[in-house]
Amino acid sequence: MTERDATAVSRFAHDTAVQRLDVDRFGAECRAGWRVIGDAAPNGGYLMALGARAMAERADRPDPVTVTAHFLAPPALGPVEVVTELVRDGRRHATVAARIVQDGRECVRLLGTFGDLSRAEGPTRVLREPPPWPAVDTLDEPLRAAPRGTLPEFLDRLDHRMPAETSGWTRGAPSGAGVHGGWCRWSDGHAFDTLALLCVADAYPPVVYDLDVGDLAWAPTIELTVQVRGRPAPGWLATRFTTRALTDGFFEEDGDLWDADGRLVALSRQLALVGRRPTTRG
Amino acid sequence: MTERDATAVSRFAHDTAVQRLDVDRFGAECRAGWRVIGDAAPNGGYLMALGARAMAERADRPDPVTVTAHFLAPPALGPVEVVTELVRDGRRHATVAARIVQDGRECVRLLGTFGDLSRAEGPTRVLREPPPWPAVDTLDEPLRAAPRGTLPEFLDRLDHRMPAETSGWTRGAPSGAGVHGGWCRWSDGHAFDTLALLCVADAYPPVVYDLDVGDLAWAPTIELTVQVRGRPAPGWLATRFTTRALTDGFFEEDGDLWDADGRLVALSRQLALVGRRPTTRG
Repeated sequence: MTERDATAVSRFAHDTAVQRLDVDRFGAECRAGWRVIGDAAPNGGYLMALGARAMAERADRPDPVTVTAHFLAPPALGPVEVVTELVRDGRRHATVAARIVQDGRECVRLLGTFGDLSRAEGPTRVLREPPPWPAVDTLDEPLRAAPRGTLPEFLDRLDHRMPAETSGWTRGAPSGAGVHGGWCRWSDGHAFDTLALLCVADAYPPVVYDLDVGDLAWAPTIELTVQVRGRPAPGWLATRFTTRALTDGFFEEDGDLWDADGRLVALSRQLALVGRRPTTRG
Repeated sequence: MTERDATAVSRFAHDTAVQRLDVDRFGAECRAGWRVIGDAAPNGGYLMALGARAMAERADRPDPVTVTAHFLAPPALGPVEVVTELVRDGRRHATVAARIVQDGRECVRLLGTFGDLSRAEGPTRVLREPPPWPAVDTLDEPLRAAPRGTLPEFLDRLDHRMPAETSGWTRGAPSGAGVHGGWCRWSDGHAFDTLALLCVADAYPPVVYDLDVGDLAWAPTIELTVQVRGRPAPGWLATRFTTRALTDGFFEEDGDLWDADGRLVALSRQLALVGRRPTTRG
């Protein structure tokens, strides 16, 4: 498929596409354009979305409700297989386990519950506030201001707009508050769907960069869980990522994602490790 | 084993004990004393701890680092089997999948990463504050004030002390803030270990009871993830559970657990459903 054809569906849908091989097995391809860490490894959220696409098809349910991924080893670019297992097929939800395998090596293990969020009903009471970011058209693209070639290719997939208060770390001045976020959308103009939210939940540099704990390297994710609460309206997504407990090198990254209509559409939490031991001050 | 013998180890250790049957399979027993919902179903955290005990043994690592459980069907009292799979055995951590099975029926599916938290090292920077609860000896036991027989047996396992601000729901006056918590310890006086934290993370009535959304029934947990950050010091554990996003009947319950020395020892998050549709106001 050429780059031109790929615009018929989103680049994301194209690059996370799965092909059913039998009842439990799906073929897919780990594609260029989604790598981080000096383009050495695919973004974890991209892999999670690819795996969850196969899981949703196995579950015969359109939406991830809560999905957990444990990251074992980064796959190289090229073919992968998603091997699924239907754990429980209930009235309202189905639970599916999966593993992403490349050349016989398991790269990601997933466990998730899937459903149809368009049919969810029950009380709503949201005490969280959407992030207080200024209007998107007043904001910079601090990630794009970096010299070409110094940022991972994955950042090109998203159009990121970040308020100054959450991008101090890009200027060598972390706020110390442990907050990242801003507005984002796919660079190709396509709308986010619920699978895309799994990718966006891991689409920012590690929030620990905003803590004043020295010169940190990449932060490997051990485990990422995303709760999807609704199908996002088209348009910019407001994101906020925080960490409030870095302990012995472990930290959580909690995300909340809000659609263009101001509705909370996902909560995420990951456990990650700081990649290199900095000058210890804390 | 008699009740008297059981005090040699904690009731918790006794009731979550596993016996290795072969490399991957463990025998265990779902015991009385841990049930909720009118004593109809075992507490989810109890089952999670039982499963994680087998997983830790399979991993040959003492501590859960992050464990996720999806709850499929409540087991009855009696024998269960924990079938484990060592997914990855790394230098620092091991990842294990498991299922708790009774009479051929899968009840819980788990996925977790295990390690040795006594050897964790790296920077620490905790921005969270421990919960602001008054001193434990000034607090009531609101759950025990209820008429005998109206509370699930599980509540007897823990000595709960709750500040008035988090127990208004027991008096028909939820605060609306979506907060539960207080101090707790095992009723038998034994100290908490890291497996016990998985149980405590699910040891409070659903935090959604503190929202003013009508007469709620039990809230089934879809998925619970606990990040364990450290081994708790002996003594009272301070807990805080919050929900800030009830959407279409789904809500998260976020917990933070602090040991008697004021150290954060675990973060938890579950996704649950309100059990009955109340008079909708939100």
